[in-house]
Amino acid sequence: MRIGLLTGGGDCPGLNAAIRAVVKQGTGEYGHTIIGFRNGWRGVVDGDVHPLGRQDIRNVLPVGGTLLGTARFHPREEDGSMDAVLATVEAEHLDALICIGGDGTLHAASRVAEAGVKIVAIPKTIDNDVEGTDLSIGFHTAVNIATEALDRVHTTAESHNRVMVVEVMGRHAGWIAVNSGIAGGAEVVLAPEEPFDIDQLVKFLRHRHRAHANFSIVVVAEGAVPREGSSMEFTQQLGRFGEIVAGSIGERVSAEIAERTGFDTRLTVLGHVQRGGEPTPTDRILGSRFGVAAVDAVSAGTSGVMTALRGERVELVSLAEVAGRPKRVPEELLRVARVLA
Amino acid sequence: MRIGLLTGGGDCPGLNAAIRAVVKQGTGEYGHTIIGFRNGWRGVVDGDVHPLGRQDIRNVLPVGGTLLGTARFHPREEDGSMDAVLATVEAEHLDALICIGGDGTLHAASRVAEAGVKIVAIPKTIDNDVEGTDLSIGFHTAVNIATEALDRVHTTAESHNRVMVVEVMGRHAGWIAVNSGIAGGAEVVLAPEEPFDIDQLVKFLRHRHRAHANFSIVVVAEGAVPREGSSMEFTQQLGRFGEIVAGSIGERVSAEIAERTGFDTRLTVLGHVQRGGEPTPTDRILGSRFGVAAVDAVSAGTSGVMTALRGERVELVSLAEVAGRPKRVPEELLRVARVLA
Amino acid sequence: MRIGLLTGGGDCPGLNAAIRAVVKQGTGEYGHTIIGFRNGWRGVVDGDVHPLGRQDIRNVLPVGGTLLGTARFHPREEDGSMDAVLATVEAEHLDALICIGGDGTLHAASRVAEAGVKIVAIPKTIDNDVEGTDLSIGFHTAVNIATEALDRVHTTAESHNRVMVVEVMGRHAGWIAVNSGIAGGAEVVLAPEEPFDIDQLVKFLRHRHRAHANFSIVVVAEGAVPREGSSMEFTQQLGRFGEIVAGSIGERVSAEIAERTGFDTRLTVLGHVQRGGEPTPTDRILGSRFGVAAVDAVSAGTSGVMTALRGERVELVSLAEVAGRPKRVPEELLRVARVLA
Amino acid sequence: MRIGLLTGGGDCPGLNAAIRAVVKQGTGEYGHTIIGFRNGWRGVVDGDVHPLGRQDIRNVLPVGGTLLGTARFHPREEDGSMDAVLATVEAEHLDALICIGGDGTLHAASRVAEAGVKIVAIPKTIDNDVEGTDLSIGFHTAVNIATEALDRVHTTAESHNRVMVVEVMGRHAGWIAVNSGIAGGAEVVLAPEEPFDIDQLVKFLRHRHRAHANFSIVVVAEGAVPREGSSMEFTQQLGRFGEIVAGSIGERVSAEIAERTGFDTRLTVLGHVQRGGEPTPTDRILGSRFGVAAVDAVSAGTSGVMTALRGERVELVSLAEVAGRPKRVPEELLRVARVLA
Repeated sequence: MRIGLLTGGGDCPGLNAAIRAVVKQGTGEYGHTIIGFRNGWRGVVDGDVHPLGRQDIRNVLPVGGTLLGTARFHPREEDGSMDAVLATVEAEHLDALICIGGDGTLHAASRVAEAGVKIVAIPKTIDNDVEGTDLSIGFHTAVNIATEALDRVHTTAESHNRVMVVEVMGRHAGWIAVNSGIAGGAEVVLAPEEPFDIDQLVKFLRHRHRAHANFSIVVVAEGAVPREGSSMEFTQQLGRFGEIVAGSIGERVSAEIAERTGFDTRLTVLGHVQRGGEPTPTDRILGSRFGVAAVDAVSAGTSGVMTALRGERVELVSLAEVAGRPKRVPEELLRVARVLA
Repeated sequence: MRIGLLTGGGDCPGLNAAIRAVVKQGTGEYGHTIIGFRNGWRGVVDGDVHPLGRQDIRNVLPVGGTLLGTARFHPREEDGSMDAVLATVEAEHLDALICIGGDGTLHAASRVAEAGVKIVAIPKTIDNDVEGTDLSIGFHTAVNIATEALDRVHTTAESHNRVMVVEVMGRHAGWIAVNSGIAGGAEVVLAPEEPFDIDQLVKFLRHRHRAHANFSIVVVAEGAVPREGSSMEFTQQLGRFGEIVAGSIGERVSAEIAERTGFDTRLTVLGHVQRGGEPTPTDRILGSRFGVAAVDAVSAGTSGVMTALRGERVELVSLAEVAGRPKRVPEELLRVARVLA
Repeated sequence: MRIGLLTGGGDCPGLNAAIRAVVKQGTGEYGHTIIGFRNGWRGVVDGDVHPLGRQDIRNVLPVGGTLLGTARFHPREEDGSMDAVLATVEAEHLDALICIGGDGTLHAASRVAEAGVKIVAIPKTIDNDVEGTDLSIGFHTAVNIATEALDRVHTTAESHNRVMVVEVMGRHAGWIAVNSGIAGGAEVVLAPEEPFDIDQLVKFLRHRHRAHANFSIVVVAEGAVPREGSSMEFTQQLGRFGEIVAGSIGERVSAEIAERTGFDTRLTVLGHVQRGGEPTPTDRILGSRFGVAAVDAVSAGTSGVMTALRGERVELVSLAEVAGRPKRVPEELLRVARVLA
Repeated sequence: MRIGLLTGGGDCPGLNAAIRAVVKQGTGEYGHTIIGFRNGWRGVVDGDVHPLGRQDIRNVLPVGGTLLGTARFHPREEDGSMDAVLATVEAEHLDALICIGGDGTLHAASRVAEAGVKIVAIPKTIDNDVEGTDLSIGFHTAVNIATEALDRVHTTAESHNRVMVVEVMGRHAGWIAVNSGIAGGAEVVLAPEEPFDIDQLVKFLRHRHRAHANFSIVVVAEGAVPREGSSMEFTQQLGRFGEIVAGSIGERVSAEIAERTGFDTRLTVLGHVQRGGEPTPTDRILGSRFGVAAVDAVSAGTSGVMTALRGERVELVSLAEVAGRPKRVPEELLRVARVLA
């Protein structure tokens, strides 16, 4: 078989582990040919191919990012790019496509599958909000990085009697915020799942600083929102691809705390460091298992599915079931973050 | 309620996160009193109590080991230590016990529960071989440490054209070996689940060094065994508590490879570094969730159960079902280790 | 002897190692009494003492920040705070003061010494710009953190064909920028020592992206400045204690690059994570050596000096010689950053 | 100019940074041609060349080991290998050689220089015992790894009331032992510089466990020796290249402590993990500076010298002065390790 392979959307650690596994399992046991595309769907549209052999994947396991490159571009019917994808699939005589990506890539994959191309997808997103799988590639590393940052600002908070506000990624779900908040011992975690009340937050901090300890760590997911009707107004300005261009929620929360409590308050926006660098062993293993499973699925003629971690097992779930439904942090985990504050 | 708390068996990272969560959740929402015991069941037998308040758990989240101390001792009917446990429970007016430990501690907990004491257990073991839960406290950190060691010996193997044999923990199951082997890109993983054939192993290494690359990484779980009837004889000498006192399997495998291939072969036995130091965020979160769940269970009057991670959820499973059955690495994971070699 | 001890200025990793060494060496070999002051000079003014014994320094070696607390406050003649310092020294019957701090603290120490108090200082500043010593406490950890961040954004830069601009600390000198830039393989390093020409920078990036590689890492020290008469105007707005309140240089450089080249350009401001968390072994050793040397100096009756690392040796240098002269990155190191771009 | 480049002796982290700097600086500013040799002096003898261009050094900065390979082989007059070196230098039309290595490589370089070849050397050894330079490549990373191991066994020692003995590298000097011992808060450090008295050691541990704390960390350099006439006999069996083949000092010290004190005592031999994996920023910077300085020296026609770090400066020292004299840990540092126990 000739199998196309692409990585789409934002880069993250663990992608190379998945690429390596696809190449090793595909070219090894099965004898397939693996045709990589550069820069995600962009490369499929442009026919920018990069055939992948064993020499291309040497020593990539601990390296972050993606050796194929990626782009935040998705094919659409309207502009002819979907037709270009189908044309490339035919021109390259591809029997199937393996697409590694987040919500946007999975959605595109779903539509390409409907157009008749055999597709198996592998979920990746540091936000971990892909439905149907316990973990997506990249999330685990992001939690580690955010936790390390919380450990670091913790000592400064304590030494200077400060409130440290740390903004982490998570547009639609607070997975990074809640997990790093629990692991880093944060006093407050603001996640999109639970709109917050700034008055209660300020009251809590005042009480804590009077009664227990004279410092606090507040973790804010970039998608956190104040409760409707609360005394804090907030509108983010979003740019293309949903990137915040002005006035992040972390900035605003930090300013409100400083103003209302008078406490020495500082903001740290973690930003891009959350999605780069060496993957944790968990992300390397996840990428490896997903890569092997995707090749197995493609080889068995399966299509329209996504690899998924369910407990200790890797399974296949229908792409149709998972696309467009952001997975949210369950109440049990939100509660643990609250009670351990 | 008055709740006793102990950590038993070998220490590991993440125990303090669980202790902290038990104290925060127990003394907070519920208003319970938490009575810690020093050095595991030893402290219960001796009535060596250490009442735990919020001041005892400050800043312990990122600290390995257990602030309560631990011991490899388990109460038995034969020598009166089981009676001493029951006497302490009565003398301290305990309504329940929360026991954090591995197979031995869980087994003891099960018998103490049968004797009429309300018990909730929390599983910990770096070997991850406790049945009924995806993860036990300590395992995740151990995999990280072992993977980092593999990353390190990798560069030496490549620079010196060597075979590097690395022995990791895992008496009854190869969880650390298989996971770190996949994450660290090992060429060979020897786990207790699959008795190995030394002749095939030697043949594989010879072929690889001739054809592909002039170095190899071999990960050996301490409980790995040669296949019966194979050309390698091996008997380990075990001491008290099953500790190996002479002739580890890693030593033997390393010697056989050196002798039969003539390749420059070196052994590293990771040993105690695998169970110490700062817990990963995953182990801190797992300990925190298990601690909260254990207090919830105890408060609801539940007994004879163990907290367990199942996919994304924390659940309770019956102690009777999990004790004495070592959980083994599933075939899917063993296969990933094989095909990515 | 009764010895006062304080940590002043911004917190950083390695302070606790120095405190621990002062207490161990002071109370051990010499039998001195160590009187800690809370929150730097603030605590001396207020007489906020915290006697330090061996139990206070258990397990603090790997912990960032300062167990004594710190504040950005320095005593002055004008407002009576200098007199309050002298009054406390007398009231507490102190034979000497050991002051751990950066430029501000050292300057204050120098004046307190002139007023007749025996003083030995220990230099700390993540900026490493204290004259007379190869290293100050905290700098080494900051370089590690900044390098790790560069490693992380590197993979994103490469995967997305981006220019990643990373702003690091360094108001008066570019030690962190230059060292992390070399260690992290940055293409451009902007340091206060060499005012930069934005036109040349843009030209260099355009050439590189056309000829070699389609991504770049630009490290900017917060004190970097455009060359006079260059086409980039820039004025930072500074708040109290010199903290930037609006429009950092990183933000400005990032915007100029994006606008002039059209390349996809992203900014990361590392901020507070650079000064917190676990100290590197080097900072632990430096703090330990400085602490022992300071006690030795005080015990020998020496005053008006600062401990300093000179090659492999710890020496004492006169406070008068080092105060107020920011140490700048030498040309050799700036050149290495340039030629390895 | 045509410049030969080799890495000899044991591999270590930071070698690739030096190779990268030689190639960038050599081929860039100066327009030289860089001819690499595979596997150290072995490759020079065999004429096994590997021309190095900019594409060979991409992304190698954070990678441990050496991309050129290395071997523990040194040319000698007796067997004709010295003549083979000179023949290769002539055959390849080399104007100079840059040799990166430890004591053995430097000694060979010195003799090759005497035979008329222009040579500049760069010191590397994780043992840090090369005279004339504050730091050699690889040492800093080794101290970090050893310190992390001490941090890890520390929590187990405390949780189980154990004596943990950790054997680290250091045949002729105790640099790793003393530095990691200070950074890791060890109670005892045994280094070759100070022959130890086992009776005093045992007495100290007994006193400590009775009086202060019920656990201890003992760091042993592999070259540590008992004091003559002391009650502990010890002879190591050494193999080729001085590798210990039986009965390490750590094993022996551990056994003596266990026997004489009755304390639960465990040994960890760090071994090969100390010399592998990602270099610290310090080793990357050191390698980079040494590489640039070596090319500058060669280009200026200098020969018979070694790059050296002296305080904040990189200088050149005569090879004749440094060869064969192992640099030992100074008394000040040994004392800090003692007083902070």
